[in-house]
Amino acid sequence: MDCRVKPGNDESQMSTAVSPLAPTDVPDLPPLDGVRLATAAAGIRYKGRTDVLLALLAPGTTVAGVFTTSKCASAPVEWCRARLKGGKSSKTGLARALVVNSGNANAFTGRSGRAATTLTAKLAAKAAGCKADEVFLASTGVIGEPLDASKFDGVLEDLSRAAGPDAWSGAARAIMTTDTFPKVATATAKIGRTTVTINGIAKGAGMIAPDMATMLAFVFTDAPLSAAALQSLLKSGVEDTFNAVTVDGDTSTSDTLLAFATGAAVARGAPKISRASDPRLKAFTKAFQGVLASLAEQVARDGEGARKLVEIVVEGATSKKSARKIAMSIANSPLVKTAIAGEDANWGRVVMAVGKAGEPADRDKLSIAFNGIRVAHKGARDPSYDEAEVSKAMKDDVIRIKVRLGLGTGRDRVLTCDLTKEYVAINGDYRS
Amino acid sequence: MDCRVKPGNDESQMSTAVSPLAPTDVPDLPPLDGVRLATAAAGIRYKGRTDVLLALLAPGTTVAGVFTTSKCASAPVEWCRARLKGGKSSKTGLARALVVNSGNANAFTGRSGRAATTLTAKLAAKAAGCKADEVFLASTGVIGEPLDASKFDGVLEDLSRAAGPDAWSGAARAIMTTDTFPKVATATAKIGRTTVTINGIAKGAGMIAPDMATMLAFVFTDAPLSAAALQSLLKSGVEDTFNAVTVDGDTSTSDTLLAFATGAAVARGAPKISRASDPRLKAFTKAFQGVLASLAEQVARDGEGARKLVEIVVEGATSKKSARKIAMSIANSPLVKTAIAGEDANWGRVVMAVGKAGEPADRDKLSIAFNGIRVAHKGARDPSYDEAEVSKAMKDDVIRIKVRLGLGTGRDRVLTCDLTKEYVAINGDYRS
Repeated sequence: MDCRVKPGNDESQMSTAVSPLAPTDVPDLPPLDGVRLATAAAGIRYKGRTDVLLALLAPGTTVAGVFTTSKCASAPVEWCRARLKGGKSSKTGLARALVVNSGNANAFTGRSGRAATTLTAKLAAKAAGCKADEVFLASTGVIGEPLDASKFDGVLEDLSRAAGPDAWSGAARAIMTTDTFPKVATATAKIGRTTVTINGIAKGAGMIAPDMATMLAFVFTDAPLSAAALQSLLKSGVEDTFNAVTVDGDTSTSDTLLAFATGAAVARGAPKISRASDPRLKAFTKAFQGVLASLAEQVARDGEGARKLVEIVVEGATSKKSARKIAMSIANSPLVKTAIAGEDANWGRVVMAVGKAGEPADRDKLSIAFNGIRVAHKGARDPSYDEAEVSKAMKDDVIRIKVRLGLGTGRDRVLTCDLTKEYVAINGDYRS
Repeated sequence: MDCRVKPGNDESQMSTAVSPLAPTDVPDLPPLDGVRLATAAAGIRYKGRTDVLLALLAPGTTVAGVFTTSKCASAPVEWCRARLKGGKSSKTGLARALVVNSGNANAFTGRSGRAATTLTAKLAAKAAGCKADEVFLASTGVIGEPLDASKFDGVLEDLSRAAGPDAWSGAARAIMTTDTFPKVATATAKIGRTTVTINGIAKGAGMIAPDMATMLAFVFTDAPLSAAALQSLLKSGVEDTFNAVTVDGDTSTSDTLLAFATGAAVARGAPKISRASDPRLKAFTKAFQGVLASLAEQVARDGEGARKLVEIVVEGATSKKSARKIAMSIANSPLVKTAIAGEDANWGRVVMAVGKAGEPADRDKLSIAFNGIRVAHKGARDPSYDEAEVSKAMKDDVIRIKVRLGLGTGRDRVLTCDLTKEYVAINGDYRS
């Protein structure tokens, strides 16, 4: 139950101080018609903090999801995929409950992993009064350890009774692993004359020994959207948000983004929308995208060991796709990321990363700027740049790298963070 | 001149102690008929150490090369490529001199970079008594700084006069940047009844602020091989040697591997070989591959900050290509590399890296072993594995990860090193 969230307790379990890049104004998420939440400490792995979230969804709630591209996806990812593709939800597009646990990712757990998802869904269905196929699941935490789903027995029924409309902050906390701050975002938009709400929570690329990065995000709205419209919005929405963020280039077995539309705003006059291309959805689409973008940026800000948020903009590529590949090559380069940690405007490494992307690039047309200061131009060091000015700019918390290729109109933007000794310490030192 | 190499001096310029992974028995390279070498301190960037190597090659020496796949290759790479493809050497396949400098990579230097290569080749041609198109060039060091090739004026003529058959160790030292030890390898093989020699030198993924990783390697033989045969040997030879090594996944603008065959062994009765498929070349091919493999392994051992050499073998993939992609995904994963630095047999991260490779893999058939100890089997933790035994094995200097996919017969092997805080320090801390 949400009342079990004792901030003092659960913060004491966090392994690191809150990231210096944590957003300063964290919004309180408003209630959202058709969604009730509760969290509890089920003792999956942690002591003295919440580790399970139950979201109860009003009848008629539609669901959509996008998942890791990993070929070794976790059992909960396979569960959700099966429900969305070919399972009963693919026909109805409906969901009644979401169960998320932290502490154990139920990944690489074989047959026992599948049994754990089945049992969790069954227990949640009983608690929520729905069918198991209407339950969606996500897990984050240690991998390769069997998840003892029997621990949810009783707990999920307690949560169902305790669930209320105001537990958003507790929900965002219950799904954290080594995240240093809870990630929430909210927006409103009008559909017709009715204002609808979008709430999102996420956890980032955290890790608990001997765990792995795992990104989970859940977005809820009271807008009346068909499952197909929601899936379409989600699919196009992730492209420039979650898919444009990288911490270390590693892909989790568990990455999960689920969206739920309760449709409760119908009671306030909102029209039912069946297609994402419906012109009445224009403002909503923008707001929805904004929530995804905010959550994705928070994930980058809370990258392990991160001291700087890094934005990489590539312009003048032959296509957006080509710009994305080049931007990701820069964002995932350990040499670029360590240079930024060292507050060094090392444009030579940016050139290297452009070059290794394998996309069209002409060295003699390349320009590179750090935080608005052009350091390289047309294939050589910019003669006018002032090293002292650049060095000062590199001390900022946010580093914006702009690369102009001068070949076409393709543009893209990705977010990442720097690579610090703390990253290595978090991920390598816990046994030494 | 080689006599300028004063070990005390040049070692005092190295930024770090010799890697604990340095090979214990470094062979003295024997003289090789048709190759004379000399090194000098031209003052390109360093003080008190050699930074330029001239190799003089007997008339009739054939040449072959493979280069970085970077789209922003350095000026010397472009020079060599032009000589091998469409330049005069592509018709004759001949080379008479090699000039290598450290301290400045002549990369991202635009027009002045091209002028510097032209001037260097001209000066070397004059010194060697050959045509500029018969001169091959490589540079390593800082990028984006103009290379003042006029510094070679006079120096190359001195080197030409001083060149001798025994300067191999000095040559390997002159091309170092942040390498902690010189990289050399040698082998002999019989072609017909004549014993021929293969000598190789290399520099690894070192870095000097504000520089970038740059891999250079040069292999010489007195075997009488046509340029086409040499190119074919080189191309197939790199596949499982230099192309199977990664330090941080970053691709230099300057990666260069050149091979030279002087043909001097003809005087001792070796038959001229025009095709790599010639059966008389069987033993030579194996020895040549061995030299490449040794140099490549030394590069991995001397990865920046490395404390462990990591071998990754992937078996049971659907093809060799698929096994390579999976092995590289593991080798380049920061999460896997930091876990090894932390002496943690974190097979969950190996699963993650297998999954993100995008190649066929069935979680429920996957087995993973660290230094011969199977920790995961058929999609779950191996119930029989002893954590204490594995923890002990992870303290070794060499970590061998074996992944069995159980799908087919595709197998591959790559080498890498661990990712330590020293890597971040070397690449990020020099300004802080």
